[in-house]
Amino acid sequence: MKAFFHRRQLLHAPTRELHNGGFTDYAETPARAEAILAAIGDVQMPGDFGEKPILAVHDAGYVEFLKTAAERWAAAGRPGDVTGYVWPVVRRRALALDRIDALVGRYSFDASSPITADTWTSAYWSAQSALAATQAVLSGERSAFALCRPPGHHAGADYLGGYCHLNVAAIAAQAARDAGVRRVAILDIDYHHGNGTQDIFWERGDVFYASIHADPASDYPFYWGHADEVGEGNGAGATLNLPLPRGTGLAVFRRTQGMALEAIAAFGAELLVVSFGADTYAGDPISSFKLETPDYAVLAADIAAACLPTVIMMEGGYAVDALGDNVASLLLGFAG
Amino acid sequence: MKAFFHRRQLLHAPTRELHNGGFTDYAETPARAEAILAAIGDVQMPGDFGEKPILAVHDAGYVEFLKTAAERWAAAGRPGDVTGYVWPVVRRRALALDRIDALVGRYSFDASSPITADTWTSAYWSAQSALAATQAVLSGERSAFALCRPPGHHAGADYLGGYCHLNVAAIAAQAARDAGVRRVAILDIDYHHGNGTQDIFWERGDVFYASIHADPASDYPFYWGHADEVGEGNGAGATLNLPLPRGTGLAVFRRTQGMALEAIAAFGAELLVVSFGADTYAGDPISSFKLETPDYAVLAADIAAACLPTVIMMEGGYAVDALGDNVASLLLGFAG
Repeated sequence: MKAFFHRRQLLHAPTRELHNGGFTDYAETPARAEAILAAIGDVQMPGDFGEKPILAVHDAGYVEFLKTAAERWAAAGRPGDVTGYVWPVVRRRALALDRIDALVGRYSFDASSPITADTWTSAYWSAQSALAATQAVLSGERSAFALCRPPGHHAGADYLGGYCHLNVAAIAAQAARDAGVRRVAILDIDYHHGNGTQDIFWERGDVFYASIHADPASDYPFYWGHADEVGEGNGAGATLNLPLPRGTGLAVFRRTQGMALEAIAAFGAELLVVSFGADTYAGDPISSFKLETPDYAVLAADIAAACLPTVIMMEGGYAVDALGDNVASLLLGFAG
Repeated sequence: MKAFFHRRQLLHAPTRELHNGGFTDYAETPARAEAILAAIGDVQMPGDFGEKPILAVHDAGYVEFLKTAAERWAAAGRPGDVTGYVWPVVRRRALALDRIDALVGRYSFDASSPITADTWTSAYWSAQSALAATQAVLSGERSAFALCRPPGHHAGADYLGGYCHLNVAAIAAQAARDAGVRRVAILDIDYHHGNGTQDIFWERGDVFYASIHADPASDYPFYWGHADEVGEGNGAGATLNLPLPRGTGLAVFRRTQGMALEAIAAFGAELLVVSFGADTYAGDPISSFKLETPDYAVLAADIAAACLPTVIMMEGGYAVDALGDNVASLLLGFAG
């Protein structure tokens, strides 16, 4: 399977994140991507598709913020990486804000995703890898893998969070739509709910979003991904949330993924985008599912059996030592 | 003027807050109240009005959260005070959440207002002081002062933030309404916009909210207090925001307060609640207005000239050395 990655995706490297009451080491490290590269070997450098496909999903003010936040932060005399401390939880709206601390709260939803001077560059090339993989599939490949890092599924049209800045799955799905694919489905099998992807397509009927994830009553991102969230307006019924309890292993996960794939088939998807997180792995340091390395091959084979052109996006997964093997298992399982 | 305070209001003492990218000492210290006590001398202990007047303003789930957060935090094995790291910026709603980190984000809007094991006790007695001062005015006193600490005006019906947990001004205004006062006005002259008070009465036409504050484009709480926010529904027109630029001194502040008092008179208020912050003081460490100690007497005389029964609530003010003098100046100016 063709795989895409650009080394500029390694530049983004915040030092710490706020988590459970204090600062801890930033879990979404460049070493994650290095581990995957070492395991899968051959990757291609993506072409440069420019900003247009990014702006087809993301708010222009948000993109400008991502590009300039680190510079504004330094200009305000702030040490370290850009981190917010106050958020618009009520009547959030477009506002002309003149302070970096206000902007970072306006364009984020957590204090766990600092921005560095390299964040935009890495996020940009992560999106280009997603677009290159999508292009490969649109050109006739049965499947392709985008080694996206930073990941994307927590990023909304105008917000970052959960280590995510540009929503690579949404950018890929939209690029497919703009290339003439009528109905696109996104299957999100990261441990965490992909709140950004859900929000981006919340009121749209042309992109189906199905997610299997840890119950948000107990797991990040908490406020999204509950089973009663099904979309609104034209998107009513085009969002499917399948939260599972901590401790879930292969049998339940696989059965649940089967339900998602059935819904995707019923929707009539012509192309599938998979948001793959290896943080469902039993050894993941910040998650609580119980999948083992060979399980990813089983899940991938089930996805492949849907017989849809498929673009696979790398999302989370923080057990760095096992990450390469877990990704390789998935890709081999898909290829059959 | 009668003044009310309970020493249990001193118990709440978080060690640090997240501010502009890092942890700093918590600015809303017990020493603030001690400084005011030393300057104004005679205070009475409030009676205990119970939880009913608190629950007339605040969500029951939120109150339960305030009472139990520190215990749940400790039970989860978290060190230090309760601090959030993720917030529901989109489609915030009632959810059954089963993790303290989720609850603190659900019931707050910043990472600057940690909860300790004593927070509920201090906030409760701060509210009782507000209620005692209100009772004094309802019983015939022309005015009364509640030495509220923790302060209240950033706290909404179901959220904390900005050092505030129970909205003492809103609790006082609601208590006056429930005692038969038909129209109540709140004049907020703290340096920061009182977003919680605004939100609580956003759709109500019986309580007028007027605020003079630093422009939220540059100053906390950023996302509330813009001039175009005027209330909605029954409350349309009953919110008046008068943001002023950094560096504002007495002349402009006084003229602006005159506009607020005119609007309050036009509204037909029968009782006035003043949210007083001394962080408009030129020497305040976290604010940027230029009022001097004698200026508070001038502003207070103008408020007194409105000839309304008036309950004054202590809100912010972080120049501890000058805080007592600034409060004394206000109270003397009001008494004429």
